[in-house]
Amino acid sequence: MPLKIALAQLNLTVGDLVGNGEKIRATVEQARLAAADLVVFAELCITGYPPEDLLLRQDFIAQTERAVQALIPRIHGITAVMGYPRKQGDDLFNAAIAIRDGSVIACYHKQALPNYGVFDEQRYFKTGKDISLFEINGTRLALTICEDVWRDGIIARNRDAGADIILTLNASPFHAGKMQQREDIICAQVQRAGVPLVYVNQVGGQDELVFDGASFVADQHGAIVFRAAEFEEQLGVVSFDHLTPRPASIAPLYQPVVSEYKALVLGIRDYVGKNGFKGAILGLSGGIDSALVLALAVDALGADQVEAVLMPSRYTADISNTDARLEAEALGVKHHIIPIEPAVNAFIAMLAPLFAGAQHDTTEENIQARCRGVVLMALSNKRGKLLLTTGNKSEMSVGYTTLYGDMAGGFAPLKDVSKQLVYQLAEYRNSLSPVIPQRVIDRPPSAELAPDQKDEDSLPPYVVLDPILALYIEQDWSAADIVARGYPQDAVERAVGLVDRNEYKRRQSPPGIRITPRAFGRDRRYPISSRFRGTSSLTED
Amino acid sequence: MPLKIALAQLNLTVGDLVGNGEKIRATVEQARLAAADLVVFAELCITGYPPEDLLLRQDFIAQTERAVQALIPRIHGITAVMGYPRKQGDDLFNAAIAIRDGSVIACYHKQALPNYGVFDEQRYFKTGKDISLFEINGTRLALTICEDVWRDGIIARNRDAGADIILTLNASPFHAGKMQQREDIICAQVQRAGVPLVYVNQVGGQDELVFDGASFVADQHGAIVFRAAEFEEQLGVVSFDHLTPRPASIAPLYQPVVSEYKALVLGIRDYVGKNGFKGAILGLSGGIDSALVLALAVDALGADQVEAVLMPSRYTADISNTDARLEAEALGVKHHIIPIEPAVNAFIAMLAPLFAGAQHDTTEENIQARCRGVVLMALSNKRGKLLLTTGNKSEMSVGYTTLYGDMAGGFAPLKDVSKQLVYQLAEYRNSLSPVIPQRVIDRPPSAELAPDQKDEDSLPPYVVLDPILALYIEQDWSAADIVARGYPQDAVERAVGLVDRNEYKRRQSPPGIRITPRAFGRDRRYPISSRFRGTSSLTED
Repeated sequence: MPLKIALAQLNLTVGDLVGNGEKIRATVEQARLAAADLVVFAELCITGYPPEDLLLRQDFIAQTERAVQALIPRIHGITAVMGYPRKQGDDLFNAAIAIRDGSVIACYHKQALPNYGVFDEQRYFKTGKDISLFEINGTRLALTICEDVWRDGIIARNRDAGADIILTLNASPFHAGKMQQREDIICAQVQRAGVPLVYVNQVGGQDELVFDGASFVADQHGAIVFRAAEFEEQLGVVSFDHLTPRPASIAPLYQPVVSEYKALVLGIRDYVGKNGFKGAILGLSGGIDSALVLALAVDALGADQVEAVLMPSRYTADISNTDARLEAEALGVKHHIIPIEPAVNAFIAMLAPLFAGAQHDTTEENIQARCRGVVLMALSNKRGKLLLTTGNKSEMSVGYTTLYGDMAGGFAPLKDVSKQLVYQLAEYRNSLSPVIPQRVIDRPPSAELAPDQKDEDSLPPYVVLDPILALYIEQDWSAADIVARGYPQDAVERAVGLVDRNEYKRRQSPPGIRITPRAFGRDRRYPISSRFRGTSSLTED
Repeated sequence: MPLKIALAQLNLTVGDLVGNGEKIRATVEQARLAAADLVVFAELCITGYPPEDLLLRQDFIAQTERAVQALIPRIHGITAVMGYPRKQGDDLFNAAIAIRDGSVIACYHKQALPNYGVFDEQRYFKTGKDISLFEINGTRLALTICEDVWRDGIIARNRDAGADIILTLNASPFHAGKMQQREDIICAQVQRAGVPLVYVNQVGGQDELVFDGASFVADQHGAIVFRAAEFEEQLGVVSFDHLTPRPASIAPLYQPVVSEYKALVLGIRDYVGKNGFKGAILGLSGGIDSALVLALAVDALGADQVEAVLMPSRYTADISNTDARLEAEALGVKHHIIPIEPAVNAFIAMLAPLFAGAQHDTTEENIQARCRGVVLMALSNKRGKLLLTTGNKSEMSVGYTTLYGDMAGGFAPLKDVSKQLVYQLAEYRNSLSPVIPQRVIDRPPSAELAPDQKDEDSLPPYVVLDPILALYIEQDWSAADIVARGYPQDAVERAVGLVDRNEYKRRQSPPGIRITPRAFGRDRRYPISSRFRGTSSLTED
C-alpha cells in the first residue's frame, strides 16, 4: 500500500503562536484533502525560528504549549509531524512530535544542537538522547531535526532500529551555495545508510536570516526525487511505493546570483511585512548601491509602496541627479528632491566658533551624510515607512560609511553583499528588464562628499579589496596567508587594519540579510576593545 | 613549611598578546621578589577575556601559543599559574597551566563551559574531562576555572584525588550583588568539601562588561581570610601554614550604589583607554542623566579630558541652561553652547513641501534630538574624543529615546542604569562632593522637545515603571505575574508593550556597561521581527 507524504514548506512568523497554529491547521487540512497519509512541517514551526531569548521566558513556553495542545485534538484522518520547544521538568528540548487522531504518537528531542555561526541552541536546549519511531500502515518512520542529519550516526542508528524512512524537520538558513551543500552532505549520509529521507525546510525572512525552503525527498540511493521551489511556500506531495519514492516535480536550484537576488527580495518583503511597516523609503544618490536597493525594494513590495529621496549637495554630479531620476521613473516610484545645503550650511556655521583654525577633514563629509540621515528618518517617522540603508558589505567591512549618516535606517539589504556582487546583481536585474541606467554601472563609484572624490582614492580597487575581505571575514584567513595567496601586501594591510578598527560602527548598524557563510551581526561576534590586529602576522619575524 | 601564594588581580586588554604577556611576566617577577612560592593569574589572562570570535581564528590561536611559549622559559624560582585558549589537535580548550623553572608542570581544561547570559563558551571550547594536580613542597594544588567551582562535584572530585588547596582562575563579570553571591556559593562548596580555595578574578572594563576583581582566599571552613580590593589591580599575598591560610587583609565589599558607581567609572575609563580615544565629550542638557554622566566621565578621565556641549532650543528652560553651566563649572569642565535652532529650522523648511498638511508629531521632536546628535558627532570626529550618550535603561527599555539623536554616541554609560538608580547614583556622588545642583535632582524629568513636556506625560511614573521593567527584563516575569504582584495593569501593559516594540532601537544602540543581572546587548538576544507580545497573557482567558 503506497504512503503519501506531504512536505509543508511554510513562511511562519516568530512569536505568532496563534497565527502559526492556524496556518499549520489549515495546511494539515489541505494535506488531508490531497489524500496524504502524513504531513511534515519544519523545525520549531509553532514558534517560528529562531525565537532566540523568548525561549528563556516561562510565559512564552507556556503559551506555546497551549497552542500545541489546542492543535492536537483538531488533527484527524492524517498524521502530522511538527516541531516546537518542549518543556520536560526543568529542561527545554527542541522537539518534534507526530500527532494522529487527536493524540501524540511519537516525540523526539533534537540531539545535535548547533552552537556556532548564527546558532545559539545550547543556550536554550538540553541534548536529546533517544531516537523516536512511529508507524503508518506498517511503514516505520523516524523523527530527526536539522543538524542531526548533518552529523554521522543518527540516520544509521535509526535505520538499525528499523526505520524505513527518515523525516527531518529543518530551519536551515540560506547562503549562496547552501542548497547544494545541504543536498550533497545529506544525500551522502542517506546513501551510506540506504534509507530514504524527507527533508522539510521553512521559508521566509526573519531579521538577518532568510530561509530558502528547497525541501526535498531523497531515495535510498541518495538521489533527489522531489524538490520544492526555493524562496516560496509550497505543499509538496510525494508517494512512496514499497519504500521507494515515486519521482515527482524537482524544482531547479537557482544560479548563485539569482538565488542571492531572490533571497534579498524575500528578506526585504518579510522584514517590512512582519514588522508592520507601511512600505519603504530610501535615499537615491545616482550610485549603484541605491539603484540596486531601489530595484530590490520594488520587486519585494511593489512600486506604490516605495518612495525615493534625492538629496543633492554641491558635490553631487549632474549625471547623478539625472540617473537617480531615471531609475525612479523606470520603476514607477514616487521621488522627492531635497537639497541638503541649507542644513549643512547651518551646521557649519553653528560649529564655526569651535572649529576655528581646525583642518577640514572627514568631519565635514560626515555632516553631509548625517544631514541626509536626518531628512530620511524624518520622512520614515512621518510616513511609518521603513528606511532602507544602501551601504554594501565592502563599505561596512572597512568603515567607509558614516554612522547615523548613510548607515541610518531600519534595515540594510546589502549589508552582506560585496561591491562586486552589487554589480552582478544589478546586471542580473537589468537582464530581466532594464531599470538601472548603464552609466550607473559603468561610472567609477564615489561617495560624492568632497570634490572629485572616488572610492579608489581611499580604498584599494574593489576587484582587489573584495576577495581580500572575503578571505579575511568569511574564511578567517590571516593577513599573511592572504598575501601568500598573491594579494598585494599594502592592500591587505590596509583592508585588514580597517576591518579591525571599524567594529564599533558595525555594532550600531541596522540588521541586514545574510547571504554569505559569514555575515556581520549574530554571525560574527567581535570585541570592540581589542588590541589584536590581523596585520600583526605580517610584521613579526 | 609555609606556602606563600600570590593572587595577581590584573587589568589586561583583549587581544593585546604582547602587552599582556609582558605585564604577566613583570608580575611574576614582583611575586618572586615578594618570596611567593606560587602566583596565580585569571582565566584566559594571556588573551584577556572575553576574546569572542577572535578564538575562531587560527592566527590568533597561533600567536597566543607563541606568547605563552615565549613566557614559559622566562619563569624561574616560582610557580606561575595562568589561563589561555589551548589548541589540542582540532579541539580548543579553555586551559590553565602551571609553569615552573621553564617547564609546564600541569595543564587543566575547563569542564563547566557557561553558555548563558553574556557567555558563549560552548561556541568556542570543547569540554575538559580530567582534573589536574601539581605539587609544591609536598602541598598538592588543583587547577579549576571559574564556572567549574559554581557547580557541584569538581571541588569534591579534586579533594578525593588528594588536593590540599583548590586554585580557581576566573573572569567573572560584575553586576550589583555579584561579589556576595559569588562568595556565598563558592564558600558553601568549599565548606562542604573542607578544602581551602584561592580565587583570582580579573579586573577592568571590556566593552559591555566590567570585571570587579575582589579575588579572595577561603579557608577549609569556607571563611574568607583574604579579599583583594574591588575595581583595582592588586597583587595579594597569602601564606598557608599546614594548609591553613593566615588571615590577611580583607578589603570591604562596597554597598550596591557605591559598587555600581565604581563599575561605571572603571567601565568608562577602560573603554576610552583601551580604544585610544583622546578623552570624552557629551551633551549637557541640565537634566539628571547628563549631569551624572558628566560626573562619571570626570571621575573616570579627569576634568581636562572631558568637554560638555549645551545645545538649547526654544523648549529648553532657562534653568536647564543655568544648571548645565553650574555642573560644568563645579567639575571644572570646558563647555560650549551651540543653540540648535538654525539647523532645526533648516530641516523644517527643507521638509515643508513633503510635510504640507501633515500633523505635527514626534517627527519634529526627533529632528531636534538628531540635530544635537549631528553637532556632538562632529565635535567627536574633529577632536578624536568619544561621544558618551546619556540615556538610561528605563528610556532604552521603552524606546523613549531618538535613534541617531540622543542615542548617538560610542558608549552609553547609563544603558543598564534605571532612572531611579540614576537618582541614587547622583546623590551618592554628591555625598562625596556637591557637583550636581540639587534642583536637577528635584525637578521632574523632561526631554524638553515640546512645550511643557514631562516624561510622565508619556510614561508611567518611574517609581512604578522601573520595578515593572526590572521584573520583565531582568527576571523574565510575565505581564500577568507583574500585575498579580500589585502593579497597575495599564502601566504594566504600556511598559511591556513598549519594551516589546522597541527592540529595533536597542539593536542599534551603542554598547553600555552591564551592572544588572541582565543588560541589553549580548546578554539579551531578542528577535526584532516577533509577533509575541508579553501582554498577551493579560488578554486571554
